[in-house]
Amino acid sequence: MRQAFWDGKRVLVTGGCSFIGSHLVEYLIEAGATVRVVDDLSSGKLSNLDDAPAGWEFVHADLRDPQVAASAMDGIEIVFHLAAVHGGRGFIDLHQTACSSNFVLDGVVSQAAMGAGVDNFVYASSGCVYPVELQGDVTEEVRLTEPQVGPPYEADGLYGWAKLMMELRLAAMHAEAGFPSVSCRLFTVYGERCPESHALTAMVGRAFLRQAPFEIWGDGTQVRNWTYVTDIVRGLALAAEHVRDGSAINLGTEEGIQVHEAAQLILDITGLDSRIKPLPDMPTGPYNRVASAAMARERLGWVPEMPFHTGLKRLANWYFETRSKDSMSSAEFADKLITR
Amino acid sequence: MRQAFWDGKRVLVTGGCSFIGSHLVEYLIEAGATVRVVDDLSSGKLSNLDDAPAGWEFVHADLRDPQVAASAMDGIEIVFHLAAVHGGRGFIDLHQTACSSNFVLDGVVSQAAMGAGVDNFVYASSGCVYPVELQGDVTEEVRLTEPQVGPPYEADGLYGWAKLMMELRLAAMHAEAGFPSVSCRLFTVYGERCPESHALTAMVGRAFLRQAPFEIWGDGTQVRNWTYVTDIVRGLALAAEHVRDGSAINLGTEEGIQVHEAAQLILDITGLDSRIKPLPDMPTGPYNRVASAAMARERLGWVPEMPFHTGLKRLANWYFETRSKDSMSSAEFADKLITR
Ligand SMILES: NC(=O)c1ccc[n+]([C@@H]2O[C@H](COP(=O)([O-])OP(=O)(O)OC[C@H]3O[C@@H](n4cnc5c(N)ncnc54)[C@H](O)[C@@H]3O)[C@@H](O)[C@H]2O)c1
Ligand SMILES: NC(=O)c1ccc[n+]([C@@H]2O[C@H](COP(=O)([O-])OP(=O)(O)OC[C@H]3O[C@@H](n4cnc5c(N)ncnc54)[C@H](O)[C@@H]3O)[C@@H](O)[C@H]2O)c1
Repeated sequence: MRQAFWDGKRVLVTGGCSFIGSHLVEYLIEAGATVRVVDDLSSGKLSNLDDAPAGWEFVHADLRDPQVAASAMDGIEIVFHLAAVHGGRGFIDLHQTACSSNFVLDGVVSQAAMGAGVDNFVYASSGCVYPVELQGDVTEEVRLTEPQVGPPYEADGLYGWAKLMMELRLAAMHAEAGFPSVSCRLFTVYGERCPESHALTAMVGRAFLRQAPFEIWGDGTQVRNWTYVTDIVRGLALAAEHVRDGSAINLGTEEGIQVHEAAQLILDITGLDSRIKPLPDMPTGPYNRVASAAMARERLGWVPEMPFHTGLKRLANWYFETRSKDSMSSAEFADKLITR
Repeated sequence: MRQAFWDGKRVLVTGGCSFIGSHLVEYLIEAGATVRVVDDLSSGKLSNLDDAPAGWEFVHADLRDPQVAASAMDGIEIVFHLAAVHGGRGFIDLHQTACSSNFVLDGVVSQAAMGAGVDNFVYASSGCVYPVELQGDVTEEVRLTEPQVGPPYEADGLYGWAKLMMELRLAAMHAEAGFPSVSCRLFTVYGERCPESHALTAMVGRAFLRQAPFEIWGDGTQVRNWTYVTDIVRGLALAAEHVRDGSAINLGTEEGIQVHEAAQLILDITGLDSRIKPLPDMPTGPYNRVASAAMARERLGWVPEMPFHTGLKRLANWYFETRSKDSMSSAEFADKLITR
């Protein structure tokens, strides 16, 4: 549905061929915007935009090149910067060098946006900026609030540090030069097109393969506030509309779910009767990560709408419909589930 | 004097036209190395290399360009990465956006060095990576030791954060891919060619102008371990020779001096009889910053040799010889002392 704010707006989505990016592109086009996607397809896929309605153009290029970044900004009013080297837990723990290339990507893209004088710059930050130390105890009720990210800092790996440094840089750019921006701290996003490198899709994939025993990473007690991608995308758009002062705002539900609960739900939804087998040596990340959504409610009027159970059903439906068991050998597939 | 390790070595010094860089280039050439300097002359000056003996080439280019960085590495065995956006205290406090462009510069240069497979990569880090919180009390005897930089982190402004992130990135590159490097945390360096944007040269400059009353920034009780540039340069070379495991090592004397003491010494050396006038509202940085030199002693056999009093005389001699009072109006000069 067209929206006054977005109608006719010229918008850049960096990394628009990603899981979240592709949903954002669809949302913005439906709201009336004209969208430019710039993506190097390093992890994104053009097929993620198969169902996007007309009204977008695509540039296949690496945004770490200052010239690419500058021309990406040409005529643009609002930037959503989602391009990043990123992956599931295994990736961000074991490929810190690769993740630290985001220092370059974020620096170059923000520099170009400042040079072009855009009206707003929305940065896809992450729950990984929160002190790891606050997220260790599964018996506590954790609600991470924005001011808990303050000196001294302790981000989650170089992936998290790069997100945090970009938040600080954007805040400095606002303080020193009035550059408009908002950082949205996304919490564990899931939904259609989420790749198998992320826990929920990996588990749905194992259910699809009718894995028995049914493997989960860690001891299964880890808590996450999985947040559905359409809620996230609506939050990103609201942030672009309402905040330009360099603030950082959480986008995440307050619904904390344990990994073994999610696994059991997936078994139920997919009608699989397997025993759950924890793999305690696999990377898990912090054990208890749940956002406070209070600031997003106050400043954006954002309330997440998708109940976990429903969102999970949608994810499973999408997965089962699009993956043909025969298109990939189980060995190949199992390999993907572990290493990506 | 030629040294076996350096004789015939092909070395890159990024930012080699800077204060420290130019001394390093001289040292390396005298030790027998062939030196390539790449500098965009944004703050460095070619005239800093006026006295360097033959044996170096110069490339005037911006190392944030990945192609420039890649060709800078061509045929190089050892890299000293000194290029940075940097300045005195006023600059790094008030131009955080500019300093945060070092995220890009450091990322691009280290990526190119990894691509080229260099034998060692020496990074000019800084005392600014230490928690500000440890450096507040002038009545304490502070000796910052390397492990005090650990999670949670609290670097000094975005300048310090960029230095710290590069240290973490280099450590990850070593852990994940065996990339050889050493980060040297330089502490408040001084000596010939140090620009007026730094406190000691600024004070020498005011003495040159026979300023009365004689202005100092802050209340004057701030402690620094000013370390003479030839000591620093020898430490950088020793680090290149002895450490390749991604460690970070302090290069700084253990001699803490208060700003008002340094000011009085400068008045004595230059024969000026002025009253010292503190400017408490000017930026000062942390009040007590002194390195422990224990690790440098153990791992590099490095001991700083220049006594503060002697080094300060040299700085003043150089300054008075090279600056002609008439070449610059006092107003122009006074302006430089404040704003740079
Ligand atoms: N998925 C989550 O749970 C989650 C949580 C927090 C934050 N985020 C952030 O949201 C954004 C989107 O994440 P995602 O999970 O949808 O997928 P993703 O992280 O894989 O998306 C990144 C996109 O950027 C593109 N890209 C990477 N480097 C590029 C470059 N140099 N030039 C141009 N394009 C480049 C990739 O091809 C991909 O399409 C990322 O910034 C990510 O860090 C995601
Ligand atoms: N002076 C000190 O007390 C001190 C203390 C700690 C660390 N350091 C570090 O030591 C290094 C040298 O410092 P300095 O005080 O001698 O002078 P400086 O910081 O001004 O030197 C930086 C040099 O890099 C060059 N440069 C900047 N951006 C560049 C780019 N994009 N491409 C190519 N060249 C570029 C500049 O022209 C200059 O010659 C810097 O990395 C600095 O951060 C200095």
